[in-house]
Amino acid sequence: MKQIETIKAGKNYAAVNVGKLNEVIDYKLPMGPDVVINGKVFVGQAVGATGSELSFQTLVPGQDSGFLHTHKTHEELYFILKGEGQYQVDEEVFPVREGSVVRVSPNGKRALKNTGNENLTMLCIQYKADSFTEADSPMTDGVILQEKLNW
Amino acid sequence: MKQIETIKAGKNYAAVNVGKLNEVIDYKLPMGPDVVINGKVFVGQAVGATGSELSFQTLVPGQDSGFLHTHKTHEELYFILKGEGQYQVDEEVFPVREGSVVRVSPNGKRALKNTGNENLTMLCIQYKADSFTEADSPMTDGVILQEKLNW
Repeated sequence: MKQIETIKAGKNYAAVNVGKLNEVIDYKLPMGPDVVINGKVFVGQAVGATGSELSFQTLVPGQDSGFLHTHKTHEELYFILKGEGQYQVDEEVFPVREGSVVRVSPNGKRALKNTGNENLTMLCIQYKADSFTEADSPMTDGVILQEKLNW
Repeated sequence: MKQIETIKAGKNYAAVNVGKLNEVIDYKLPMGPDVVINGKVFVGQAVGATGSELSFQTLVPGQDSGFLHTHKTHEELYFILKGEGQYQVDEEVFPVREGSVVRVSPNGKRALKNTGNENLTMLCIQYKADSFTEADSPMTDGVILQEKLNW
């Protein structure tokens, strides 16, 4: 069974390899004694994420999420990394393809379908909605250092 | 100049196309009157993210981040989507490639270098560190609906 590989971890970081994007289909996610989701892997625990959950998933042609879902407090971002499909939020359906990014509020009823002829691979990330203030732009939160790089 | 395309937006969502991963190199990010970063685009504002910032960046062979940086309160995730390189956190350097995911705490001093022969394309996402509690697993925050899908 395909598993996440550890690269390295330290006080301030953890790094893993999920595998090439076309290998995501090889993951199996156990959901119960007799239920397995093929082609999906959660990565948040493996990297020790403290404010997000993240998953890669591959849908084969014709496959969809299986159901609409909402969230209680988490906003989600969906990144289509390969393939093409249709994305539903509430009553709207729109096309997505490699390079599409969809942001969904907690209350949005969402699902994705692979409507193309090849596998669709996506990355989904969830985190607390409305947790940024004006002080949270990357320009104000980031601190550039003068220390030397090790290469 | 390459720009993000809007797909559709509604009450609970916004969807955009950044373009294919090999087109990220075409973006130009203005940093000042005479300073432009080639191959980088921020997407948070375009999708109306309320608890994250996100960017795609392509580094050409031999190119690095230019400097180490830390954050005040944001944890970052780096996803290597194409290519291979080296990642530095504090004094450690380790290899990354397509499918690598690196989680860095606010205090981690970080940078990335493309050490391969092809372009390296990555996705970087930042959000509030330590904002999840035990109640924030995807299983407890998500709500599965019985409503019908529109395809």
